[in-house]
Amino acid sequence: MKPIRLIAFTTFAVLALTLRARADDPLPSWNDGVAKQSIVEFVEKVTKPGSPDFVPAAERIATFDNDGTLWCEQPVPVQLFFALDRVKTLAPQHPEWKTKEPFASLLKGDLKTALAGGEHAILELVMATHAGMTTAEFEKIVKDWIATAKHPRFKRPFTECIYQPMVELLAYLRASGFKTFIVSGGGIEFMRPWTEKVYGVPPEQVVGSSVKTKYEMRDSKPVLMRLPEINFIDDKSGKPVGINQHIGRRPIAAFGNSDGDREMLEYTQGGSGVRFMLLVLHDDAAREYAYGPAKGLPDVKLGAFTPALYEQTKKDGWIVVSMKDDWKRIFAFEKN
Amino acid sequence: MKPIRLIAFTTFAVLALTLRARADDPLPSWNDGVAKQSIVEFVEKVTKPGSPDFVPAAERIATFDNDGTLWCEQPVPVQLFFALDRVKTLAPQHPEWKTKEPFASLLKGDLKTALAGGEHAILELVMATHAGMTTAEFEKIVKDWIATAKHPRFKRPFTECIYQPMVELLAYLRASGFKTFIVSGGGIEFMRPWTEKVYGVPPEQVVGSSVKTKYEMRDSKPVLMRLPEINFIDDKSGKPVGINQHIGRRPIAAFGNSDGDREMLEYTQGGSGVRFMLLVLHDDAAREYAYGPAKGLPDVKLGAFTPALYEQTKKDGWIVVSMKDDWKRIFAFEKN
Repeated sequence: MKPIRLIAFTTFAVLALTLRARADDPLPSWNDGVAKQSIVEFVEKVTKPGSPDFVPAAERIATFDNDGTLWCEQPVPVQLFFALDRVKTLAPQHPEWKTKEPFASLLKGDLKTALAGGEHAILELVMATHAGMTTAEFEKIVKDWIATAKHPRFKRPFTECIYQPMVELLAYLRASGFKTFIVSGGGIEFMRPWTEKVYGVPPEQVVGSSVKTKYEMRDSKPVLMRLPEINFIDDKSGKPVGINQHIGRRPIAAFGNSDGDREMLEYTQGGSGVRFMLLVLHDDAAREYAYGPAKGLPDVKLGAFTPALYEQTKKDGWIVVSMKDDWKRIFAFEKN
Repeated sequence: MKPIRLIAFTTFAVLALTLRARADDPLPSWNDGVAKQSIVEFVEKVTKPGSPDFVPAAERIATFDNDGTLWCEQPVPVQLFFALDRVKTLAPQHPEWKTKEPFASLLKGDLKTALAGGEHAILELVMATHAGMTTAEFEKIVKDWIATAKHPRFKRPFTECIYQPMVELLAYLRASGFKTFIVSGGGIEFMRPWTEKVYGVPPEQVVGSSVKTKYEMRDSKPVLMRLPEINFIDDKSGKPVGINQHIGRRPIAAFGNSDGDREMLEYTQGGSGVRFMLLVLHDDAAREYAYGPAKGLPDVKLGAFTPALYEQTKKDGWIVVSMKDDWKRIFAFEKN
């Protein structure tokens, strides 16, 4: 073989091997490192027949937080953008909002003052925008909104501002016989209209916060009306409660990013046999956002990775994913 | 061929054809008739690609009531037997029960007086016997009880007093791409420990009534405590609410046997496209029990197939299964 041909051949062979390695890699957007390695080791342990850590497929339950774990929750959680747009849409029917907080400030575009009322203000906002219609009507409102609304920084639909490494992880777990669930503080009926398409998670595998609903006949048609009353808050200690209520099994793997996920990870870890707990750390201001203890950023009210939680990950051996170091790319739309 | 050989051959051929027909029959315990035929026609319509009534597999949701629809609910619902046995077990720790209703009458074996207090008495009974332990402890209590308790008439474990034709129907639907859910007024955590083994329905596909639970650390272990407080009653108009909360899709087929299932069937029928609604009528006192409008029996408080419901089946075109006429056998243990 002539030298030039040899080089070409070698290059081709190396390329082919690389491509083959990539094709075999279920997590191509993850850099090699402790996080990726620990995921693969866990999955191999629980799926290998005869392994002392083998878990039957029916018990392979994995639960994922959504905001900040599967998709971007900055500068504010997506559902808050939805509520704001709903306020604008509904304002003509509510002249009283011009002088009533949190609506008055919102309509002036002053998000900070509007949310100064804390949880009470958010609750009022949710009730005014998420209740008073049938579940089918709400589904359509969400579908229409999510099809057009865009992230203010990335100028893309919110459903494209999802973390590609986590999408790969969801698919990898499912290919390994896991049933993947979303367990989010967000509204269950705000997520269900799009999670199947975006994450491959069907509505019946979504657990979230909810308002009460009431069965009634409207024009001789049976409907469920959404009432302005909280049914369940699926956050913090509510997450294990929601998991038990919906799934009825303790997960063997749980994924989150904030203090709201602490109890879900504790509950997962508390079961017998091998378990896997992982938190996503937002430390990449260039490609996404940096917030939480690693960067000394002020804690945001929603989605905080508190210093105490960071300590707990070390004590309990939970995996912390550095978005900056562990993820080759964050979004599918990123240029490589 | 000699005549004797011809007869033998013909007999063999007929036998072989019969056996083959049986092997192909997904519902061998169902007699031919409107009920069986309508089930098969419905399944073929929604599963046949290109059919105008085709439904994608992900949307093939079927919901089943449990008491009186999948298993025997007479002379009283199984969970009441469970509660009674729990009262006896716990009585030594509750000397006050000797003079307190409904416990006093129960402990004397006087079920009628004990339940004279109606819903309030039942609620008190459930709270005293179903709360105050962790979810894991309650699961073990249920598993231990269901493994040994027997039906007073059939002298078999309750989990054998299940309707063989309905077990075949569950399997037939699943083989046709359906996801089968139980939607019962019974306790969600009373059913989950055994539904997978008995019906092939995993815990995450069981919807039922529940008590509130609370996440807490006990001896540094994360547990969910069962509180003596009703969380949700999954009966009547609660069934569509429970379906929406757990499944997030409207079923395309629903199966029940009583007034408690009316709203579930209405809600199922209210969706677009082809739908299937079926009620089991208990009219076979010889093999099981006869109760409800067909036999003019007095309505029982729980599990009543009221005359009004019977009228509604005719008006709305819901299928009524006569256990006597439509079912070749009711229980797998029956002699054929």
